[in-house]
Amino acid sequence: MTNIRVIRHPREMMDFSDAARARGERIGFVPTMGYLHEGHLSLMREARRRASVVVASIFVNPTQFGPNEDLSRYPRDFAGDCAMMESVPVDVVLAPEAQDMYPARAQTWVEVTELTRGLCGKGRPGHFRGVTTVVAKLFNIVKPHLAFFGEKDFQQLRAIQQMVADLNFDIEIVPMPIVREPDHLAMSSRNAYLTAAQRRDALALSRAIATVRENFAGAQAPADIVKLATKVLSRPGIAIEYVEVVDAETLAPATSLQAPVLMAIAARVGATRLIDNVVLRQESSPTSR
Amino acid sequence: MTNIRVIRHPREMMDFSDAARARGERIGFVPTMGYLHEGHLSLMREARRRASVVVASIFVNPTQFGPNEDLSRYPRDFAGDCAMMESVPVDVVLAPEAQDMYPARAQTWVEVTELTRGLCGKGRPGHFRGVTTVVAKLFNIVKPHLAFFGEKDFQQLRAIQQMVADLNFDIEIVPMPIVREPDHLAMSSRNAYLTAAQRRDALALSRAIATVRENFAGAQAPADIVKLATKVLSRPGIAIEYVEVVDAETLAPATSLQAPVLMAIAARVGATRLIDNVVLRQESSPTSR
Repeated sequence: MTNIRVIRHPREMMDFSDAARARGERIGFVPTMGYLHEGHLSLMREARRRASVVVASIFVNPTQFGPNEDLSRYPRDFAGDCAMMESVPVDVVLAPEAQDMYPARAQTWVEVTELTRGLCGKGRPGHFRGVTTVVAKLFNIVKPHLAFFGEKDFQQLRAIQQMVADLNFDIEIVPMPIVREPDHLAMSSRNAYLTAAQRRDALALSRAIATVRENFAGAQAPADIVKLATKVLSRPGIAIEYVEVVDAETLAPATSLQAPVLMAIAARVGATRLIDNVVLRQESSPTSR
Repeated sequence: MTNIRVIRHPREMMDFSDAARARGERIGFVPTMGYLHEGHLSLMREARRRASVVVASIFVNPTQFGPNEDLSRYPRDFAGDCAMMESVPVDVVLAPEAQDMYPARAQTWVEVTELTRGLCGKGRPGHFRGVTTVVAKLFNIVKPHLAFFGEKDFQQLRAIQQMVADLNFDIEIVPMPIVREPDHLAMSSRNAYLTAAQRRDALALSRAIATVRENFAGAQAPADIVKLATKVLSRPGIAIEYVEVVDAETLAPATSLQAPVLMAIAARVGATRLIDNVVLRQESSPTSR
């Protein structure tokens, strides 16, 4: 049993949010696929600080999984998730059924084009279309003032920022930094798939990030960074999907290191696909987007 | 000069609507491309009856025009439109600039798939994607409780109803019947393109509609209806683009006349593309969708 109010149906969530808005509340929203970890909780705690009502959603969204991906075995633990959310505390968890989110004949897609072409978009066709579609739906259902997204999924964050701007969603998107395990592995629900040996192999990703961070001052060109990271990642147990350096705003391949760049990594450790990234700014470069 | 409040910027419109909602107003919205006629006004009058604040938008949306279509010569008369809207009266007209609706790097599309494949979707690729994208934007900017659309653009109406359901927009879509000239030509801003002679030729469309309506009881199959309409339309001055009978809900080709069907016509009169339609129900068939 949990003290958090669990809402299953979109209409009930809309009514809750209408009433909250009518009372003058500020709604902070954290969409998740559940199997929560400290990364998710850091978003919820920030929502708690910045909003008067905190809503989280737990929905393993089928439309963002490819036909050969891990939808059916994606880890789930609703009771455990509720216990963690109580510690924040979260006020409402929206946990809809797939058939209520995608009834028969659903046929509308929200698609962000340029930003989703490269990086993970290349190896996961349709993934970001599924993400932006479900987030647009959740935004209309939860009606938040603020929504929180982790920088671990940097391309997802940029796609959602772009969607919000392009479709005039009146919602402030709050990006939150990557949370890492004590050994620096970026937190992810998919880390649960790793065996103990794979878990050790997986540290090559965060080591590549750390190496690049330490040596960035001496880098002359994007290729130098790719080379550094690739060297750290080139070891048994790791199958690199990509190591790329892109403009941190447009996600187009970086041609210099003048503007802030993102180095992003995707690699398989056994059957598990992991990602990690870092934004790099030269001292003279603009500090923010 | 007009007494209607004219809002140019999306942010100003959002603030207006937030304030109206906080006061407990019900916002009724009529999106248009301007050059208003009685069809538009019938929507605005219904909005006036059903809402406490009436917002209309005038925006000739570039993304719904094909490269060889009439974007640059689409008729415009903002002063005349305002005078007509004062007669309703409309409270606010949103008339944004194209660069504020589509800034550089805008790249997000809302697309309804199955419903937009046939009928006008075939001859106007990208058109409905432009419509659903701009309507999603306008919904987020105007934040209405109700929005009004004419059945003249029946496929557009169905696409928007589907988008609203699929993306969980909390907005009631109100369909309104076609308004016709005294001689039965369906009202359209594009009728302004017609010469006096073309105007006479164009009456074949509404005559085809009337003929089908009168003879529907005797029709056995969709092909009978197509034949009837095609016969009326086959005359000098008219170039038929399509005459189709489709399921009134799914817009898929009708295989029988059991369920309500839509007969839809698109034809060119000179360079001007005109459309018209009628929903047909056999006496034993369900009365509504």
